[in-house]
Amino acid sequence: MKFVEKLEQAVQRNTSLLCIGLDAEKAKLPSSVAHSMEAQFEFNRRIIDATADIVCAYKPNMAFYEAEGSVGLSALRKTLEYIPKHIPIILDAKRGDIGNTSRIYARACFDDLKVDAVTVNAYMGSDAVEPFLQYKDKAAFVLVKTSNPSAVEFEDLEDRNGVKLYLHVANKVAEWNRKYPGTAGAVVGATYAEDLIAVRAAVGDAPLLIPGVGAQGGDVQSTIENGLNSRGAGVIINSSREILFASAGADFAEAARKKATELREAFNAARS
Amino acid sequence: MKFVEKLEQAVQRNTSLLCIGLDAEKAKLPSSVAHSMEAQFEFNRRIIDATADIVCAYKPNMAFYEAEGSVGLSALRKTLEYIPKHIPIILDAKRGDIGNTSRIYARACFDDLKVDAVTVNAYMGSDAVEPFLQYKDKAAFVLVKTSNPSAVEFEDLEDRNGVKLYLHVANKVAEWNRKYPGTAGAVVGATYAEDLIAVRAAVGDAPLLIPGVGAQGGDVQSTIENGLNSRGAGVIINSSREILFASAGADFAEAARKKATELREAFNAARS
Repeated sequence: MKFVEKLEQAVQRNTSLLCIGLDAEKAKLPSSVAHSMEAQFEFNRRIIDATADIVCAYKPNMAFYEAEGSVGLSALRKTLEYIPKHIPIILDAKRGDIGNTSRIYARACFDDLKVDAVTVNAYMGSDAVEPFLQYKDKAAFVLVKTSNPSAVEFEDLEDRNGVKLYLHVANKVAEWNRKYPGTAGAVVGATYAEDLIAVRAAVGDAPLLIPGVGAQGGDVQSTIENGLNSRGAGVIINSSREILFASAGADFAEAARKKATELREAFNAARS
Repeated sequence: MKFVEKLEQAVQRNTSLLCIGLDAEKAKLPSSVAHSMEAQFEFNRRIIDATADIVCAYKPNMAFYEAEGSVGLSALRKTLEYIPKHIPIILDAKRGDIGNTSRIYARACFDDLKVDAVTVNAYMGSDAVEPFLQYKDKAAFVLVKTSNPSAVEFEDLEDRNGVKLYLHVANKVAEWNRKYPGTAGAVVGATYAEDLIAVRAAVGDAPLLIPGVGAQGGDVQSTIENGLNSRGAGVIINSSREILFASAGADFAEAARKKATELREAFNAARS
């Protein structure tokens, strides 16, 4: 099954555009799980149990597992296996290297870790991205306009015609999707609302992974209006810390579900 | 000690501008080591033993270790510990994420793995890079103009004044080096000789990590002439597969030394 089909089925099943970023930063875990043998997995397991019926995807960020060495990578593997098979997993790893090396990274993500999608940095061009797109049932979410404050430094650089770098990357995403159907998506921060309109226009119906709603300041209504594709789909809105660390107490999973439910309802209200 | 001092001491000690890329791809290891318990480490150990007196740095590429899971990461750790302490280690991991996440990556590279430098992708701007520069005795080599064919797609994008994206990034490397002295370097492929001149002019005396000499087609003489800084230093020329896999037989380490010696001599001839 193509990634986009798996995603749309998950969106429909749970009536949700919400993706939860599993950024299980060790130092931030509630004390009720922090001291267990596999704290990061234990934390994620509880979060997944509490939210698997209200999300359309999970997005673990590699950094937080890599930082804990082999223990962290074991926790990541267990987390990936624990996520119900019908929910797409986007590994946030921001990969990108010369072709030979990107091939190795793609193999590690898709053949070994078996995730459904990965985030990719396209600075180095097609060589860095295409090895990920050659997996026809997987997807690569290419960084187009990121949600962080300094995203403007290079991503907004304008060419002679006033076309910004991020739009050149978005146009390339469309091109890659024609060459490798259904495999390329774009990362666009909700913090740059007008850019979202331009990116949606550039990439056609490709899925958008959108961080930055809520805590980072992105507005829900405009994000969803501007993000939806011609079929009223193709939007994945990510929230991480706001959900994971909604409570520092033993009730963190319930608090996460409560926060996730609020966001899901807000997204659904904006959508209808 | 600052990274640049450690580098210059290693350059002088071994009279060498050669960095060996430890890209120990499992599938390419000679059969004489491929079946040992820790094949990647065993291979690297033999390569290091054969070349530690003729290099100025080693550059392991994270992809090839990550691809082998916990076994690969254990091999990477052992390799990092095995490299003599006076030789700088540049981890080729092409990191870069929002500030909070880049901080975690920087900690993993510098505090945990204890490498001297890491390669960084600056697409997302200063937020992605500065957490690495806040370690005053470490360095980040920022991707400026990479050696791969598709580097031209985005890196050569011209602004209204004809200034290319890679040069904007190079100018930022200079700015970062003023803010965090001696911590920022640039990656520039030898395959784009004219761009090397522009990058050197932009970054001042900052160290350049230069892949693409030899097999990829970069010319040694012009690379070194154009790459050296005002003190006749600041150039690290990387070669990986050409050295590592110079022989597929049991004599791979001797063959690697022979090839590495040839390159080192060619670099030194061009330098004088």
